[in-house]
Amino acid sequence: MKDVSEHSSREKGVWVTYGRGVYDITHFVGKHPGGDKIMMAAGGSVEPFWTLYGVHKKPEILAMMEAYRIGNIDEVEAVTPGDLSDPYGNEPRRHPALRPSSEKPYNAEPPPELLVESFITPQELFYVRNHLPVPEVDAETYELEISGLGLKKDLKLSLKDLKKFPKHTVTAAVQCAGNRRSEMTKVKPVKGLNWGHAAIGNATWTGVKLCDLLKHLGLKDDTTALHVQFEGLDTDVSNTPYGASIPIEKAMDPRGDVLLAYEMNGEPLSRDHGFPVRAIVPGVVGARNVKWLGRIVLSKDESDSHWQQNDYKGFSPGVDWDTVDFKTSPAIQELPVVSAICTPAEGEKVKIVNGKIDVKGYAWSGGGRKIIRIDVSCDRGATWHTAQLTDQNSDRHPHHWAWSLWSAQIPVSVKKGQMEVWVKAVDSSYNTQPEDFKHIWNLRGVLGNAYHKIKVSVY
Amino acid sequence: MKDVSEHSSREKGVWVTYGRGVYDITHFVGKHPGGDKIMMAAGGSVEPFWTLYGVHKKPEILAMMEAYRIGNIDEVEAVTPGDLSDPYGNEPRRHPALRPSSEKPYNAEPPPELLVESFITPQELFYVRNHLPVPEVDAETYELEISGLGLKKDLKLSLKDLKKFPKHTVTAAVQCAGNRRSEMTKVKPVKGLNWGHAAIGNATWTGVKLCDLLKHLGLKDDTTALHVQFEGLDTDVSNTPYGASIPIEKAMDPRGDVLLAYEMNGEPLSRDHGFPVRAIVPGVVGARNVKWLGRIVLSKDESDSHWQQNDYKGFSPGVDWDTVDFKTSPAIQELPVVSAICTPAEGEKVKIVNGKIDVKGYAWSGGGRKIIRIDVSCDRGATWHTAQLTDQNSDRHPHHWAWSLWSAQIPVSVKKGQMEVWVKAVDSSYNTQPEDFKHIWNLRGVLGNAYHKIKVSVY
Repeated sequence: MKDVSEHSSREKGVWVTYGRGVYDITHFVGKHPGGDKIMMAAGGSVEPFWTLYGVHKKPEILAMMEAYRIGNIDEVEAVTPGDLSDPYGNEPRRHPALRPSSEKPYNAEPPPELLVESFITPQELFYVRNHLPVPEVDAETYELEISGLGLKKDLKLSLKDLKKFPKHTVTAAVQCAGNRRSEMTKVKPVKGLNWGHAAIGNATWTGVKLCDLLKHLGLKDDTTALHVQFEGLDTDVSNTPYGASIPIEKAMDPRGDVLLAYEMNGEPLSRDHGFPVRAIVPGVVGARNVKWLGRIVLSKDESDSHWQQNDYKGFSPGVDWDTVDFKTSPAIQELPVVSAICTPAEGEKVKIVNGKIDVKGYAWSGGGRKIIRIDVSCDRGATWHTAQLTDQNSDRHPHHWAWSLWSAQIPVSVKKGQMEVWVKAVDSSYNTQPEDFKHIWNLRGVLGNAYHKIKVSVY
Repeated sequence: MKDVSEHSSREKGVWVTYGRGVYDITHFVGKHPGGDKIMMAAGGSVEPFWTLYGVHKKPEILAMMEAYRIGNIDEVEAVTPGDLSDPYGNEPRRHPALRPSSEKPYNAEPPPELLVESFITPQELFYVRNHLPVPEVDAETYELEISGLGLKKDLKLSLKDLKKFPKHTVTAAVQCAGNRRSEMTKVKPVKGLNWGHAAIGNATWTGVKLCDLLKHLGLKDDTTALHVQFEGLDTDVSNTPYGASIPIEKAMDPRGDVLLAYEMNGEPLSRDHGFPVRAIVPGVVGARNVKWLGRIVLSKDESDSHWQQNDYKGFSPGVDWDTVDFKTSPAIQELPVVSAICTPAEGEKVKIVNGKIDVKGYAWSGGGRKIIRIDVSCDRGATWHTAQLTDQNSDRHPHHWAWSLWSAQIPVSVKKGQMEVWVKAVDSSYNTQPEDFKHIWNLRGVLGNAYHKIKVSVY
């Protein structure tokens, strides 16, 4: 795999993998109509790309591929641990198309233009937000502990035990609170990973409904528990696990769809996405969707973890690090409405066709709210054009968890030169986005949902 | 009563009523510390004001009042119908403090400064939004018809029948979709009543939970009905009633708190507020809170009423009356987050005390979302100050239906002269308001939730 990953450019050669096969497609890339997009797979697997571009996964193309085969991945090498003295010495391999904002812990997002290629984001291209080293969990010995207020008894469940409960699948977007931080930080610097606008993805998640499990364990609707605390199996140097909690109302709502998920897009969760079990809390900020779930505690109190108490909270633009009191602000749960332009990219040269340019992107709202309208402007808001919602499922408000993809052909008034493209979304509670980051700036750089504005040049 | 209402100024004399008594307080007004506010009661009842200013309803004040008594209201006269050839000839009397935006149908809001005097808005000072003449309904013969998909049988229930179901009380704000239209119309004219920012109020509502009733009538959670349609007993000249509908998810959620309400603030509903029964749909636009409820129908379809299909919908600023297609936009249900400044008033002269001015207002969000923060600025957003939430109940997201009152002492940088005060709110899903009306303008002038900005002069 190391050899493969070193061959990721036209100069050094373009190698990709498919299954265990390694293929040198250097000469092929120049001829292929989507050459630029193939280059994103360079040095890694083509499989997630074929999920995006379904047309490729055909016998004749697989046969053609074989002509380029130059060898096989060494399976043993692929899982051999690295430097065991480094807490990050045993991280999984990641797809080279992901763009890391930090290596240790590993945090990365895909190129935004890939997000609009598919309603479902392939697991290998889904943004990764880790707070600690990725734990290695053995599915055979894995146990989930459950305890707390209102349960008949404490319990330990194996993966097999969990799979005995009715299987439930939901399509839900998961977004990092810091998505689009790189835009907010231009107003005034903030603390946090410098995310672009691809720290979001949309997947199908399959697992056990948390409310089914809790009811089975004797929890009543009138429980005095107010919060469900989650603990991950990922720990820091002092052995403290990652933790978060969600309100009991969300956990116990049968239509809240909170899952203990063991599959993502029909496959077992990968290590980066929480193998073997993670919490999926649709409509709620990624930080509460705890991965490598080791423990659930029902309580009158929120999780006392750093991430629940002293991070992932919003503040007024007037609050700085000298005056901030984290106790004054509630932990982020439901996220506000957001949208972004994925193509064209900032600074791109865009061809005008019939007086119009093509624009594509995503939009999403937390809390089960559906996107009802996307407005796009090419003249800084003087006129607004309504985009087409190209991909949206039929789930109803307030249980609409998936994102929406949209596209628009927008008339441009200039013949050539610089211009801005703006987008804003409206959700099913008719909430919309703030115009810019200035008045929603906050010291942690979270909740960045202002209009997405990009500069492009047209010709 | 006509005599009383003609005495509403210092020049003509100031008469007020309390119970059946009529009092001439012309000479008293000049001496009272709250003279200006008493003037709002001039020509009408002081009782709603005493609800706001609880300190007054004491035996010694009642005794003092008796010195000013000049007569009694003629009960017969008070209910004598007017011109029966006019569909609006039999309207109830209204409190003179209400400011009508239309007389036929009657639509009116209270002075905004009254809203911040009390967490609960007195019934007589609560904004009135009627679409048609107020029907006169006899409580003894009143019947509510219920029919449709999934019910064991059609049914007619008397008020007595309804009162046999468990009694449920919620505190919920109700807001008109057109609240603050007078601000939006400054961007570009819109169609609709020229509401200020007091077409909102907060009350306790008591009645039968709609989900209890529907379950009692055999409706199952897996019903194929998608909407609950409401019809009022108010009708137009063609005998078509006012109508609206809400999604089944809201109606059937036990914590959605949809009520068939027969009390407001512990009293029977007044005629203007829907006597004897109105739908209360917490978190949802006023237009779906149907008054004088005559009929409930469960259906796969929304109400086909004009107000559900071709009104009360939001559109892009790019849509005008030549291009609008009402089918393209969903009927407004949950309202977005809003806030407003109630004191000082636009244009008021405000005294600076210790370098600061006092500002008060309300904030609210639809969908059961709680207000978590209010930011106020006196320098057009250059700096933001967090206000105190002075009145807020303990209901939890997503079942927080009441509004929040707030106040702030804001430092001002100028010594005297003109300045602007801005307010914006953040709700428990961290949605916030758009900065101004320009980009949320819509042809019906609804959903006006931009920052509230007022000009004042300070000295």
